Amino acid sequence: MHQQSKEMQNCIDQCLSCYKICLGTAMTHCLEMGGKHVEPAHFRLMMACAEACQTSAHFMLINTPHHKHTCRECAEICEECATDCETIGSMDECVQACRSCADSCRKMTA
Amino acid sequence: MHQQSKEMQNCIDQCLSCYKICLGTAMTHCLEMGGKHVEPAHFRLMMACAEACQTSAHFMLINTPHHKHTCRECAEICEECATDCETIGSMDECVQACRSCADSCRKMTA
Amino acid sequence: MHQQSKEMQNCIDQCLSCYKICLGTAMTHCLEMGGKHVEPAHFRLMMACAEACQTSAHFMLINTPHHKHTCRECAEICEECATDCETIGSMDECVQACRSCADSCRKMTA
Amino acid sequence: MHQQSKEMQNCIDQCLSCYKICLGTAMTHCLEMGGKHVEPAHFRLMMACAEACQTSAHFMLINTPHHKHTCRECAEICEECATDCETIGSMDECVQACRSCADSCRKMTA
Repeated sequence: MHQQSKEMQNCIDQCLSCYKICLGTAMTHCLEMGGKHVEPAHFRLMMACAEACQTSAHFMLINTPHHKHTCRECAEICEECATDCETIGSMDECVQACRSCADSCRKMTA
Repeated sequence: MHQQSKEMQNCIDQCLSCYKICLGTAMTHCLEMGGKHVEPAHFRLMMACAEACQTSAHFMLINTPHHKHTCRECAEICEECATDCETIGSMDECVQACRSCADSCRKMTA
Repeated sequence: MHQQSKEMQNCIDQCLSCYKICLGTAMTHCLEMGGKHVEPAHFRLMMACAEACQTSAHFMLINTPHHKHTCRECAEICEECATDCETIGSMDECVQACRSCADSCRKMTA
Repeated sequence: MHQQSKEMQNCIDQCLSCYKICLGTAMTHCLEMGGKHVEPAHFRLMMACAEACQTSAHFMLINTPHHKHTCRECAEICEECATDCETIGSMDECVQACRSCADSCRKMTA
């Protein structure tokens, strides 16, 4: 990859990893577990988190200065998603990916 | 469509229309005109605008309250894209779609 | 919009409309109804249909000849989604959007 | 991640990596080099390749059997993109990512 700082390259990777884990967890684990896992507020948060991560990666890859705003929003949604997944339980991989992505995104907003 | 207010439905349509016009203009008109039209700052702004519009529509369709933040960011990028397209010229359809989308997105951020 | 034939412009609009209705129906109606509506096979089909439609529109807007293949796949998924929504019931808007999009996409594959 | 075979997990990673490299290369390297790099046919192919890769990853994450068709199309576009990048030159990372992704996608179409 060109031009992007090591920090931005790392953030792109964290975003794509979190996109992958949130979307994959929602569409396999959550749909198959049912109950709390498909409760609208939780499921929408998982899907919004996946989309926010993919969009933030996209903005950094486009190399636009607007990535600062998408990264700020992404950090916020990831934190909320991590807390929600922790409360519901059995989604440790998702909790970890969201926390790690939020940390990485916050560094890009400065 | 369900649940979404008339105002939100209108905003989803404005976002999808602006996504369509920005992406279509960049990938046909701009690439074929060359020169100023493929200057990195301009082309990236067109692509960021298309992505921001598509993401805002997606967030409203997911029915997540986070759409307020994506709509605020979308309004900002659309205004910037409209101004840039106006300066370069020969992209009136894009200027109009961006302005109209920005107006609609601002109403969703309250 | 530039260059695209009237037929392609119509297909782009059908794809974006079907994307909007499938995603919106899944994330509001289906999640809130529960039961059969969040059964994994059905819900995945709704989400795959929304993504296929958005991707086909994207390929036509990019103006790449590969749109013929994405339109063929889109027509197939839309037909399957229409049939599934008809069987489950109470999703007439989705059935109609999928059928109409499938018709439009088939015309682009010639 | 749940349920997905090791082979599918690998293909998802290859697709997201190729998405990242194609989009990043187009929006930085190609836009800044200009000339052949922003010639419409080449630039559209880069953008179509990025979108095809992201969509194939998305379909596998949704866990829909339709991923076989998106993977077939993705393999085809990746091969074409690799050849085009090789001809134009100075995009070795992109050539390699496209070839590797095409190999991985072909294994998913059986």
